[in-house]
Amino acid sequence: MNHLKSDVVLPQPYLLFLGDTTEPGYAKTAFGLRDWAGGRCVGEYAIDGATVVTGLARMTPEQAAASGAKAIVIGVANSGGFIPATWWPALVRAMEAGLDVVSGMHARLRDIDVLREAAARLGRRLIDVREPPSAIPIATGKPRTGKRLLTLGTDCALGKKYTALALTHAFVARGIDATFRATGQTGILIAGGGIPMDAVVADFAAGAAEMLSPDAAEHHWDVIEGQGSLFHPAYAGVSLALLHGSQPDVIVACHEAGRERVLGHPAYALPSIEETIDLALRLGARTNPRIRCGGVGLNTSRLEETAALRLLASESDRLGLPVADPMRGGASFERLVDACLS
Amino acid sequence: MNHLKSDVVLPQPYLLFLGDTTEPGYAKTAFGLRDWAGGRCVGEYAIDGATVVTGLARMTPEQAAASGAKAIVIGVANSGGFIPATWWPALVRAMEAGLDVVSGMHARLRDIDVLREAAARLGRRLIDVREPPSAIPIATGKPRTGKRLLTLGTDCALGKKYTALALTHAFVARGIDATFRATGQTGILIAGGGIPMDAVVADFAAGAAEMLSPDAAEHHWDVIEGQGSLFHPAYAGVSLALLHGSQPDVIVACHEAGRERVLGHPAYALPSIEETIDLALRLGARTNPRIRCGGVGLNTSRLEETAALRLLASESDRLGLPVADPMRGGASFERLVDACLS
Repeated sequence: MNHLKSDVVLPQPYLLFLGDTTEPGYAKTAFGLRDWAGGRCVGEYAIDGATVVTGLARMTPEQAAASGAKAIVIGVANSGGFIPATWWPALVRAMEAGLDVVSGMHARLRDIDVLREAAARLGRRLIDVREPPSAIPIATGKPRTGKRLLTLGTDCALGKKYTALALTHAFVARGIDATFRATGQTGILIAGGGIPMDAVVADFAAGAAEMLSPDAAEHHWDVIEGQGSLFHPAYAGVSLALLHGSQPDVIVACHEAGRERVLGHPAYALPSIEETIDLALRLGARTNPRIRCGGVGLNTSRLEETAALRLLASESDRLGLPVADPMRGGASFERLVDACLS
Repeated sequence: MNHLKSDVVLPQPYLLFLGDTTEPGYAKTAFGLRDWAGGRCVGEYAIDGATVVTGLARMTPEQAAASGAKAIVIGVANSGGFIPATWWPALVRAMEAGLDVVSGMHARLRDIDVLREAAARLGRRLIDVREPPSAIPIATGKPRTGKRLLTLGTDCALGKKYTALALTHAFVARGIDATFRATGQTGILIAGGGIPMDAVVADFAAGAAEMLSPDAAEHHWDVIEGQGSLFHPAYAGVSLALLHGSQPDVIVACHEAGRERVLGHPAYALPSIEETIDLALRLGARTNPRIRCGGVGLNTSRLEETAALRLLASESDRLGLPVADPMRGGASFERLVDACLS
């Protein structure tokens, strides 16, 4: 799956670490890795008390290392976003078995003495994927070779990453050379590389986006994971920097059926899909005048199949664009893929 | 001049340090401090070789300390943006005389061993104004009390800071309670506080803008220094975060007569003033639906007086808005002030 590779390469395959997690909602990273990078996960590992499972083979760090694992990945969070002391012995054991440790959490691995000392003693790496590269240039705005697609949304957390991943897989399935470009923690763990856009210093954010999708072959597609929303009261600046720096030829607008308010900012109504597309095309044309909209990724996970298909069809009629739920696939999704590549 | 005070307070008054500078173009910070914070500069100090002067009284660090100076401010740059070793003894002497050291340069004072050791030995502070506060929250998007004005521009480096300063002084001269809010290094040195927006991590940029202009009295005005441009291929994300977080009631669009290409990005044409106002109002309405344009600040420094006044009048007719050069003042500037406050 080298179409998921990036310049910043994480050690793979992974052993997924589930800690002592009992709440499936805290295991989103593990489920994302299972769903999108299952072929690069040798198994899962948990400590006493855990009830969450991914369905991958359960194994010890020693067994994982023998199966070729190169790193243990923390696949779960907790409500505080920290790495509890009850997990430390398991992570040290993984290092003793020969694995590096990879984390996408807010807390830094190297700030935990026990882990830092074990890594130094054993010659293992502690990799925090929330840390951006150190030498990001100021954006130049210069056109780059190759094709680019950016997913963007009416809000955060409604399917931009999954839409980009599904499109990448669909492009590759059609024999097209395509690379998923990750811009957030889970995406980076899935891709094995990328740049955490939210952690880049503001002046360099567009430069980071340029760095993420460098010059490529004429028919190659970079499919870039969007962040935030151009209408988000806290994150619109990140979204605009990503749009300008990505210079997309094609955008796909993502929305969740039924979402009406900005997540965490209930005073803010969500923009319409049309407004989102219109503003993205207007702003994006600044760095790529050829920008166009390929269609809409509509998250219908809260609807039944029949209602979902009916909504996808009616939204497609209303907007005059392909509208598909990438997680449902089917004919509407193939039409979206056609439109992106046309 | 407490209308220039902010939450982050620099030690004032200043002694301006000119190093061994022979190129007036490198002394922009010193000239800006002389022009806008002259009452808080006790004098200037230079070392052998300097030819640049500000016109302030020349004095030693000991004389400056005796005159009440609290800090020496590096008022000049060099082509590398670093602090040369030839300046170090003068900065150490200033610390020995009782002064803190303040710098807006890229290089960090504390990364220079000689300065760090002298500061520790003498109990002085080394203050790098490019460092943002450590605890910036994510933006909430919640409305705040008081009035806000934001300058924004068709490009970088064409008068957003000077326009904001001139408007602040004009407001105060009319008896209105107003505070200049600095968002860049020179502005922060002038104001004695502020937040360097370009150095904030992208996810927190709008939150920093909210922090910079907190709740205030009903009739108080915060006049906020704009950064970058919504059309800038590298910095538009910063500009949008500042616009969203500032929630301005009034914007003033800044432009330089004759500038046609983005500074440092000659492949990019500058947007028109109308496009700049239109996009800023559209985007700014997301966090403040009452946003309106007060008029235009037009930098005519490259024109003769007669040509400048003719251009200000014709642009005002064309745009149907007050258009003034804040550095020339006059009736057109008073009309701009009227329109901002109306």
